[in-house]
Amino acid sequence: MADMNKMVNDITSMDEDFAKWYTDIVKKAELIGYTSVKGCMVIRPYGYAIWENIQRILDNAFKATGHENVNMPMFIPESLLQKEKDHVEGFAPEVAWVTYGGSEKLEERLCVRPTSETLFCEHYANIIQSYRDLPKKYNQWVSVVRWEKTTRPFLRSREFLWQEGHTIHATAEEAIAETEQMLNVYADFCENSLAIPVVKGRKTDSDKFAGAEATYAIEALMHDGKALQAGTSHYFGDGFAKAFNIQYSDRRNQKKYPHQTSWGMTTRLIGAIIMTHGDDNGLVLPPDVAPIQAVIIPIAQHKAGVPEKAAEVAEQLKSIARVKLDDTDNSPGWKFSEYEMKGVPVRIELGPRDIEQGQCVVVTRHNREKTIVQLDELADVLPKKLQEVRDGMFQKALQNREQHTYRCKTMDEINAKLAELGDGFVLAPWCESEECEDTVKEQTGVGSRCISMTEDPADGDVCVCCGKPAKKIVYWGKAY
Amino acid sequence: MADMNKMVNDITSMDEDFAKWYTDIVKKAELIGYTSVKGCMVIRPYGYAIWENIQRILDNAFKATGHENVNMPMFIPESLLQKEKDHVEGFAPEVAWVTYGGSEKLEERLCVRPTSETLFCEHYANIIQSYRDLPKKYNQWVSVVRWEKTTRPFLRSREFLWQEGHTIHATAEEAIAETEQMLNVYADFCENSLAIPVVKGRKTDSDKFAGAEATYAIEALMHDGKALQAGTSHYFGDGFAKAFNIQYSDRRNQKKYPHQTSWGMTTRLIGAIIMTHGDDNGLVLPPDVAPIQAVIIPIAQHKAGVPEKAAEVAEQLKSIARVKLDDTDNSPGWKFSEYEMKGVPVRIELGPRDIEQGQCVVVTRHNREKTIVQLDELADVLPKKLQEVRDGMFQKALQNREQHTYRCKTMDEINAKLAELGDGFVLAPWCESEECEDTVKEQTGVGSRCISMTEDPADGDVCVCCGKPAKKIVYWGKAY
Repeated sequence: MADMNKMVNDITSMDEDFAKWYTDIVKKAELIGYTSVKGCMVIRPYGYAIWENIQRILDNAFKATGHENVNMPMFIPESLLQKEKDHVEGFAPEVAWVTYGGSEKLEERLCVRPTSETLFCEHYANIIQSYRDLPKKYNQWVSVVRWEKTTRPFLRSREFLWQEGHTIHATAEEAIAETEQMLNVYADFCENSLAIPVVKGRKTDSDKFAGAEATYAIEALMHDGKALQAGTSHYFGDGFAKAFNIQYSDRRNQKKYPHQTSWGMTTRLIGAIIMTHGDDNGLVLPPDVAPIQAVIIPIAQHKAGVPEKAAEVAEQLKSIARVKLDDTDNSPGWKFSEYEMKGVPVRIELGPRDIEQGQCVVVTRHNREKTIVQLDELADVLPKKLQEVRDGMFQKALQNREQHTYRCKTMDEINAKLAELGDGFVLAPWCESEECEDTVKEQTGVGSRCISMTEDPADGDVCVCCGKPAKKIVYWGKAY
Repeated sequence: MADMNKMVNDITSMDEDFAKWYTDIVKKAELIGYTSVKGCMVIRPYGYAIWENIQRILDNAFKATGHENVNMPMFIPESLLQKEKDHVEGFAPEVAWVTYGGSEKLEERLCVRPTSETLFCEHYANIIQSYRDLPKKYNQWVSVVRWEKTTRPFLRSREFLWQEGHTIHATAEEAIAETEQMLNVYADFCENSLAIPVVKGRKTDSDKFAGAEATYAIEALMHDGKALQAGTSHYFGDGFAKAFNIQYSDRRNQKKYPHQTSWGMTTRLIGAIIMTHGDDNGLVLPPDVAPIQAVIIPIAQHKAGVPEKAAEVAEQLKSIARVKLDDTDNSPGWKFSEYEMKGVPVRIELGPRDIEQGQCVVVTRHNREKTIVQLDELADVLPKKLQEVRDGMFQKALQNREQHTYRCKTMDEINAKLAELGDGFVLAPWCESEECEDTVKEQTGVGSRCISMTEDPADGDVCVCCGKPAKKIVYWGKAY
């Protein structure tokens, strides 16, 4: 079986060339198509269906926490982008500029939004007068553009799809609570729905979002030991409010500056799914976002009774899960490979002998485990199987992360661990100086991913770099 | 009540100034916000929630007819846009051009998509080889940009949200059937979900989509007697396939050009809803797309038992409809006006005396009809009420259209009817010459909206303009 898959799926092995393995999967699983628009991609139906499932689950979570969707223009006038000093410095070098409308040169250039803080601020200034108007908790599902030099499907492209939440609150406390809440929503989504274990942390000052007081992130460890930032949540304080002159009258009719947040997740998550769960036979999808959760493959379907029974089973399961019956003329072996490539979590094989015995064969994608299931129990078993698959995938990924998380006290130790065990998370104490942050990166190759939110240095812990007393425990790693 | 509403809502009467009435509604009902991005708008939560409902219903209809969602880049390289001659002529004058990425001048200008035929064609050319690859039935939900000179919220803006369906088929017959099917999906959606009666028709050659062989449209009549194109469905033949060299091998291994369609609906529909159903008290929303279908307003809510009962009713109804309980401190009169402005289809009033008698007062927005409903029957009555509302709104709009549809045989008759009865649809025979089409517009002010698909000229019917034998019956009108 393994050999045949190899032959049919014909993708580079991940141990041989991880980058090529990744590119093979996005193409062979029909997730994306290339275009003549440099650095941009077509998201094909199978890839987009994954994104639709991500959207649906996240959107429900946003609404359940009191957020409303809106839609802002895709353009930002240059003068508006420039209102917040740090923000424009961070983004201006990488935006696309519209300079002509038809044949007419524009009086002022417009950039295609790289992110929409400035537009939300302009809107808040228009609609917020009193404490009664607060909070506003908004989100939008759009695409943004950042003029990247080197691009890779899902991981880094000039245009990408995302959601950007933007909220504004009367007090700093409320805004900080919002920032934390959304980080938790993101972490729960990654762990529960994508079966991807994540580390929650705060970014160091050098790595903050342009214009933010604090940036929080969730970081996941990919199969090759590199880290991937899967979502960020920013606390802005009242910096943007001051730059955009957003004020409200409080209960005592005093003018106050409100406090803001923003938070975002992108189509990058699809890259994270591929690199966390995928294997040499292709994609492995977590059931919650899999376009097809179970595929039914009839065996010897020319035999009387087989197509009928397969259709009956499909009909019976369709209200329970996203099920597909493949009754095309292709061989069962070809179909096995095809749906393994596409990462369908559960395969149900149904042949004449199975039918005779009132049973079917259930195979789970992530571990290739086979189970015989009685047909009259299948409707009960399938949801449990899908949960088992999610749990199994999560445990496997967690185990990989644990095997590749190294606690180190010295630079030599970092270099030794990375050399011995391969790339991974390095957990090491830090003095909080940017100089040491840079030195660690120069001398070991791992940069700071985030500051641990659960762990502080023990008494006597010293900075892995300079030997001065440590103030934080940092997750270091190579990053996508 | 009417006077108080007038006072609180304070909008221009539609008879006084229809355009100002429209603008007042989009602002006061909090559908949009203005921005410093000329010709673009913020769609606020209440406006966007209407669009989300439109999306959900249409997206289900698309999927039920076998379509899949994808996502194309938002940019089109100039050379790609130029591949189909008619298409580029139609769109190039009104596109926004990106000329810089960061500080670097681009080698080739990119336009922000005004529509995506060219991108879909490039993708088809990459993925279609054989008849087995056909049909492809794709759709995407995105925004597009057209550099309009004068803009109005929802009706005409430089950026607008839409869906664009793009399909490709082995034969002309299949593509034509697709074009017709989607026109019907659009018409059914408008009539059933938006309660807007529409005329289905074909556009004259001068009014076709750039690059299409035939354009079909649905046209609705607004309250002021002007027509609004609510959706279009285009048949392209194999013109784009030839321009982009898309070919497939048929069953006999012969190379063939496939046939294409595209079809779209936009946020314009929200403008159509406003101008079909709205009145001098504000918005009137069809229940299927209303963000709030029923609002519960407690009367004398300081009295014991009222808030509790109101909450109980809200809880009981929440699985039946999109229900909101407004238990804020504002007065009931203020709330009545507020939700009339927002067009909530059903209002449920609940006071101490009602509760004593186990009943409530149900008021429907479109006709302000009051009904006493027993509380224990409310869960059964509400869905029926919502259906009644949709039916009542549709009949009212249909009646308005019928009163403003004029059958005319001569130019004088057209001018007389319009002068006497106001703007509306003129139904008149036509010889099919572009010259007569232009002359009718010059001399009467009404342009051709579409050619009737259900009615042909009778024997002896002559062109309303030149007097030669008529070939078509045309709907003429002034248009948004």
